[in-house]
Amino acid sequence: MPKILTNGFVITVNEENMVYRQGAVAFDGDVITYVGEVPEDLSVYDEVIDVRGAIIMPGLVNTHGHAAMSLLRGYADDLPLQEWLETKMWPLEGQFTSEHVKWGTYLSIIEMLRTGTTCFMDMYDHMDQVAEAAEVSGMRAGLARGVIGLCPVDVQKQKLEEAADFAQRWNGKADGRITTMMSPHAPYTCPPDYIRQIVEKAHELDLPIHIHMSESQREVEQNRNDYGLRPPAHLEKLGVFERPTLVAHAVHLTDEEIELLAKYDVKVSHNPISNLKLASGIARVPEMLGAGITVSLGTDSSASNNNLNLFEEIKMAALLHKGVSYNPVVVPAEEALRMGTRYGAEAMFIGKQTGSLEAGKKADIIVVRTDRAHFHPLHDPVSHLVYATSGYDVKDVYVNGKMLVDNGEIKTLDEEKIIYETNRMFDSLEK
Amino acid sequence: MPKILTNGFVITVNEENMVYRQGAVAFDGDVITYVGEVPEDLSVYDEVIDVRGAIIMPGLVNTHGHAAMSLLRGYADDLPLQEWLETKMWPLEGQFTSEHVKWGTYLSIIEMLRTGTTCFMDMYDHMDQVAEAAEVSGMRAGLARGVIGLCPVDVQKQKLEEAADFAQRWNGKADGRITTMMSPHAPYTCPPDYIRQIVEKAHELDLPIHIHMSESQREVEQNRNDYGLRPPAHLEKLGVFERPTLVAHAVHLTDEEIELLAKYDVKVSHNPISNLKLASGIARVPEMLGAGITVSLGTDSSASNNNLNLFEEIKMAALLHKGVSYNPVVVPAEEALRMGTRYGAEAMFIGKQTGSLEAGKKADIIVVRTDRAHFHPLHDPVSHLVYATSGYDVKDVYVNGKMLVDNGEIKTLDEEKIIYETNRMFDSLEK
Repeated sequence: MPKILTNGFVITVNEENMVYRQGAVAFDGDVITYVGEVPEDLSVYDEVIDVRGAIIMPGLVNTHGHAAMSLLRGYADDLPLQEWLETKMWPLEGQFTSEHVKWGTYLSIIEMLRTGTTCFMDMYDHMDQVAEAAEVSGMRAGLARGVIGLCPVDVQKQKLEEAADFAQRWNGKADGRITTMMSPHAPYTCPPDYIRQIVEKAHELDLPIHIHMSESQREVEQNRNDYGLRPPAHLEKLGVFERPTLVAHAVHLTDEEIELLAKYDVKVSHNPISNLKLASGIARVPEMLGAGITVSLGTDSSASNNNLNLFEEIKMAALLHKGVSYNPVVVPAEEALRMGTRYGAEAMFIGKQTGSLEAGKKADIIVVRTDRAHFHPLHDPVSHLVYATSGYDVKDVYVNGKMLVDNGEIKTLDEEKIIYETNRMFDSLEK
Repeated sequence: MPKILTNGFVITVNEENMVYRQGAVAFDGDVITYVGEVPEDLSVYDEVIDVRGAIIMPGLVNTHGHAAMSLLRGYADDLPLQEWLETKMWPLEGQFTSEHVKWGTYLSIIEMLRTGTTCFMDMYDHMDQVAEAAEVSGMRAGLARGVIGLCPVDVQKQKLEEAADFAQRWNGKADGRITTMMSPHAPYTCPPDYIRQIVEKAHELDLPIHIHMSESQREVEQNRNDYGLRPPAHLEKLGVFERPTLVAHAVHLTDEEIELLAKYDVKVSHNPISNLKLASGIARVPEMLGAGITVSLGTDSSASNNNLNLFEEIKMAALLHKGVSYNPVVVPAEEALRMGTRYGAEAMFIGKQTGSLEAGKKADIIVVRTDRAHFHPLHDPVSHLVYATSGYDVKDVYVNGKMLVDNGEIKTLDEEKIIYETNRMFDSLEK
């Protein structure tokens, strides 16, 4: 049943043919079959959807988060990091059951879909719930059971088995929408030997690795005190970078560390809003991009953001690095948009399947309305997508060719029920 | 005809009674008559509007902008400042007629109203058009004909007369919604003697002054080269601060300059997004707030932002200064919200009339929906207003007690026509 979206500004996010001002995108089942000018003959299509001047672009890719933590959105802000973690986050997260994770994740999925994210990376616990939510909702997801190794060896072992079991059971599931990774939480929460075991398991299962790294200055210092090395050299030594690796944050890096990450083709998830809110600092994005590193964007969780609207991350990435470097040409609009789409897919190692509009890729497509004041004059739609939209101009969302959002309404989930259950779950936690 | 909004989270933005979780706000004509818990007897009201769990709060106040420049939104991004100004902005602005200013301003007003701004400060040329647009739309505005003095003395004189004439004709007009100021554009665009003349006129007319100051490092250096003083000392010497003054930007300040501004009670319009986008730098907001300076928020124009959604400025103010200072407790959510409301009204010298919800103040009120996923769990509505909303949750907007936006639709203006005319005006400019 081939379908075609016509009469839109098509933004492919490719280097060549970035924009078709009067364009069309066709797909058959879950695969894009055509991207270009509106074809003369539309009779081959079962359905012709005239988007009337809206933007047609790839769905956004959020490469780092903990969806279930939306349950703690706004519960604790404006606190020193340790106080935030020790007196607010951990005591509540410690009470999370799979029910909490289920409803928190559904809440996040609604928000991500509505603001145009079609694919998300998630690292957490109770991951079967997250996988089921991705499956039911229709989203694409990269999933990893994040393991913290500050525990006895037998518990470590059990967690690693659980993570490997989860990764094997879900990899390639939900019509291929779900892929999995292995995830040691961070160098400061996993002893070196445990990280080695996880890497070994990742080799065995042929899976990529997702890990937090160099988020705060304090963490870097602690790593040096504990292991004599800063986090990148430490992880290199443990063999992590021998696997395809996606690191979250990478805020505090030296020139040499940027070279190291580039050498191993380590992918980075830049989380500018979370890094500002937790006062972690500002990552050296222009330098990383300059070194050829794939820098993608992540929201982190709603507990440190406090939303999952990736358009905000795109705008922040385009703005922040200009201001701190006193250089208005760094991270230009087109690059910021690629960070939120194509580079995201590449960072999740699914760049061949999604992340841009190209015949043969999966039909992960969003339609963005341009009929409101802030999209005019409509001279440069790429600029408006980066600098002018709030994210709430996303109208329709397709993943694998299936329409998940229709004119702002989520088709696969019951938002009212999810909001109700989320509040009930939040209230059930002892504060 | 007294009306009452009931069953909302009322956020007054006052120090005491900041939030009523089951609150009501009543107004009669253009004046607020009640703020508090929902009263038992509602029979005295002609109209009872049940907002069903939405947020009721003061309208936002945008204290620095050039509304007409929305006509150049997205026309030029990611360029070095001088190239941006000299090859892009000035050549097009030089072609602006009053028609361009009219439609550009209407476009801006739609966007501001829809995202909850009820009052805006504007400094530009062809100001009669801006005043008329404010009058017709129903918005509250502080207006000033910005004068650039890099011209022969007779032209300087004519511009000053024009600015004074405009200020006198419009001050207090549109049912008191319009107030006016005198506005030397900046220390680097007005010779010292000309600034003195403008200050003298401001004394004569008893009007405040609005001026750009210390936006870029280059400007500060130039001022020192040209006049032997950095901008604040230079303006002090010229007597500017003897008048009530609102300075825009104030990015590059020394400790002594912060003390100086505090001493004269100079108000500041912090424009974080524009300052980042133009790579001007990051203002020392925590230090200014600490010194007791009234720091408000402005978008600057859509040519350097690129929108007029003040909720983005509020979130940016709350995030940015945490990140650059490595201190997560600076500019907490409540303070950021005050910067976008009450402090804004105070910075425009209309703090007695508007900026917070208080009996006796003008009924400038917005209603924000809370029924979408990103507002949940609904534990702390102040946090969600600062960190979670995009601004497109604003539902209804009242200024002077008159409803200007009803469920997202602008009641006083024809958006479709304005968008059409804006594009026509943009196309009419020679590029």
